[in-house]
Amino acid sequence: MTNQYTVVTPEIAARLEAICGKNYVIYRDAERLEPYSHDEIPGKHYRHLPEIVVRPQSTEEVAAVIKLANEEHIAVTPRGAGSGLSGGAVPVYGGIVIATDRMNKILELDKENMMVVVQPGVIANDINEFLRPHGLLYAGYPMSMETCYIGGNVAENAGGGKAVKYGVTARYVLGLEVVLPNGDIMEVGGKLLKDVTGYNLLPLFTGSEGTLGFFTKIILKVIPRPKYQFDLLVLFKDSRTAINAVPATMTESGVTPTSIEYMDADSFQSACRYLNETLPYEEAGAMLLISVDGNDPEQMMDELELIGSFLEKHGAFMVYVADNPANSERIWKIRRNVAESFSLYFPRQSGEDVVVPPACIAEVVEEFQQLAERYGVTIPCYGHAGDGNLHSRVSAPDSWSDERWEQTLPLVLKELYELVAKRGGRISGEHGIGCKRLKYMPCVVSETFINVLRSIKKALDPNTIMNPGKIFEFSD
Amino acid sequence: MTNQYTVVTPEIAARLEAICGKNYVIYRDAERLEPYSHDEIPGKHYRHLPEIVVRPQSTEEVAAVIKLANEEHIAVTPRGAGSGLSGGAVPVYGGIVIATDRMNKILELDKENMMVVVQPGVIANDINEFLRPHGLLYAGYPMSMETCYIGGNVAENAGGGKAVKYGVTARYVLGLEVVLPNGDIMEVGGKLLKDVTGYNLLPLFTGSEGTLGFFTKIILKVIPRPKYQFDLLVLFKDSRTAINAVPATMTESGVTPTSIEYMDADSFQSACRYLNETLPYEEAGAMLLISVDGNDPEQMMDELELIGSFLEKHGAFMVYVADNPANSERIWKIRRNVAESFSLYFPRQSGEDVVVPPACIAEVVEEFQQLAERYGVTIPCYGHAGDGNLHSRVSAPDSWSDERWEQTLPLVLKELYELVAKRGGRISGEHGIGCKRLKYMPCVVSETFINVLRSIKKALDPNTIMNPGKIFEFSD
Repeated sequence: MTNQYTVVTPEIAARLEAICGKNYVIYRDAERLEPYSHDEIPGKHYRHLPEIVVRPQSTEEVAAVIKLANEEHIAVTPRGAGSGLSGGAVPVYGGIVIATDRMNKILELDKENMMVVVQPGVIANDINEFLRPHGLLYAGYPMSMETCYIGGNVAENAGGGKAVKYGVTARYVLGLEVVLPNGDIMEVGGKLLKDVTGYNLLPLFTGSEGTLGFFTKIILKVIPRPKYQFDLLVLFKDSRTAINAVPATMTESGVTPTSIEYMDADSFQSACRYLNETLPYEEAGAMLLISVDGNDPEQMMDELELIGSFLEKHGAFMVYVADNPANSERIWKIRRNVAESFSLYFPRQSGEDVVVPPACIAEVVEEFQQLAERYGVTIPCYGHAGDGNLHSRVSAPDSWSDERWEQTLPLVLKELYELVAKRGGRISGEHGIGCKRLKYMPCVVSETFINVLRSIKKALDPNTIMNPGKIFEFSD
Repeated sequence: MTNQYTVVTPEIAARLEAICGKNYVIYRDAERLEPYSHDEIPGKHYRHLPEIVVRPQSTEEVAAVIKLANEEHIAVTPRGAGSGLSGGAVPVYGGIVIATDRMNKILELDKENMMVVVQPGVIANDINEFLRPHGLLYAGYPMSMETCYIGGNVAENAGGGKAVKYGVTARYVLGLEVVLPNGDIMEVGGKLLKDVTGYNLLPLFTGSEGTLGFFTKIILKVIPRPKYQFDLLVLFKDSRTAINAVPATMTESGVTPTSIEYMDADSFQSACRYLNETLPYEEAGAMLLISVDGNDPEQMMDELELIGSFLEKHGAFMVYVADNPANSERIWKIRRNVAESFSLYFPRQSGEDVVVPPACIAEVVEEFQQLAERYGVTIPCYGHAGDGNLHSRVSAPDSWSDERWEQTLPLVLKELYELVAKRGGRISGEHGIGCKRLKYMPCVVSETFINVLRSIKKALDPNTIMNPGKIFEFSD
């Protein structure tokens, strides 16, 4: 088995057109293929054109495409909205991109079982708009919720802003219809809240980054929608004090907030500039955004007060309460736009997604700043502080040449990942490995672990056609 | 590869003694081997003597035993407390049983990260006794908590009485040290609340019933211990009314209880007889046991009242509140002892563990009763009604001959599982497949699904030494 794939010939293109319909295949049209060559990682390094894009509308069409690809040995890359941050949807070996944009239906709301059945191309936020009138909530809340597709969320096991209380995507995935790498269709799970009938394949496929199969149907658990959400915006003089306050708040306040988000000054200033938003918090060196949700406003205000006074004891100089949806949305919009603003203002940067034991997050932020100083770069930090999941943007000064940046970045990343590994952390908490972090896997996991991943991949995809070049290199 | 294993010779026994110490090996001693020949399934059908039992004390000893077994091609069966209900710990191909009883230490309480690190041989309840003074809770609550080992809970992905609110074991397993089938030691996960660095192997190993590796260290998430638990005992005239009330309570009351347990009259009467307990509820045909936990007694009483009045509208004729620990424990003890009492009073029976979409549990109970009538058996039902996970005991009348029972049971089970399959259910919600349900897997999952399980097994255990004869037959 090698990574030498068959070229997509006009004859193969015609067979794919016969499967999906001529209007839903893009071939030999560089301009229309270009949008499928990248995800949201800025810069040109992670771009690669597919040879052909197909946009199937049914499970059967997806199965036929994958069966053909497997028989002909052509690489297949599943693609959702392309909002990923690890190159997961980039066809690094060319071949076929299967886009899910036409499989965008909410198939069923099963209120009695508190479940919703969707196709992979539904926008995450649309699920919640659909559920809202029924008083129900899908608890996933990735920061790109307004654009990302649920299929991509499942493929990457997306986290997001509410994972502190609600957990990540995998907790809500109860069933999958999967097209396997040989084109067979398999049902995994179902409308079941518990199931030990054979290995637990659901969380193996969830987060497998499109390397083990293609999801054509997804059963999600939904929960009663909390009636209220209140937010605290808590200001600190400096980032160290802010981040230091997080683990203590988690363990000692006795309250489990829905979210504990952290933004240093660079992060929220960048987002405010991008949104043309002004906040009267110029003196703040860092802030925490803390949410609680529930049905009892009095109790929630008690909880917020408890957290607020707790944080004041831990060095907060100002605590603002946003107890109405408009104010909440204003603050959360800033948080959701940090990543996009950085991508715009810092073209030479690398968005990182490390996760560490939650109690050591403050030390890690501190060490990142020392690392940044040593190399003369900046490493602004923000993210899901309550889970120990830190987004940091290693960024070059404007004055640097491209060459200097390209030589320096790998050195910084290697040291950064080694700092994380030393504390038992990992290089991705929610964005995935993709092609971006593949070569850094050995920094944080053992060769034995990687070989187990490879052996599972080989068992399910012996011809290595599903999303090759992601998570690990594969050849023998 | 075949299931022809090497016989454990005195020479191999001596090598195992050299690894674990002579005192911790049982060989050629039928009386001392006997307790390792069965789990808690009553009857003789699922018994099989091991050739040798080893009781290692360290990861290194376990790894050395498994390495030897892999090289010599000897079957290895991991064993916890032997409290399982699917034959998972039964050495159906003889060989080596590795007992975890000497690996019984709580290694670390990490309060800052809200995690506890344990060895596999710790009794589940002992973890909570240890955590109690620290105000912390491990949320697993299998009914055998006073005897079962945490290693077995992880291997079977145990559910239990609190899964409605807290989920099953897998939600709390953050890290594992695993001895792989070739004797290599692998770390999976860690002190991390999120992690997408490679495939999510934790939930694959959790619930793999000892077929993919042996767990030598387990990192568990713990949560703040709720200060109070209140219970409702709710009586109904008949089982249909009781079970019918469950899905509506789950979806419409707006409250998520910690537990919703169901017992029909046969079930609670059997447990009361076993415990020599009397309850003044003779006229009840079925009961629900509903718990809420939390820190705010007033709010909890409001929730209980809401649920109580809701259930009265749905046909409950009596609602008792147990608002102190002694009363709660009295009721829960009855619930926890249903299984054991049945095993005692009905020696010819089969304990089932089906799981169905929660909204159809009432119809399934109804259909089970019709099935029972058709075959002249009884099928008392109890269990975790809130998750759709029903324990039912297919039991022979006293008057039947053993032969009649042995001929009838497979017919009843096949129909019972087909009823479950028709509704998208599965044959095990929490007890596992083991050797007991292996041959019924094709009733509820596809051949494709079973082949994917087999291919993963083959990838990780090419010599099929780890717990053979469980989940699926394996030969080629």
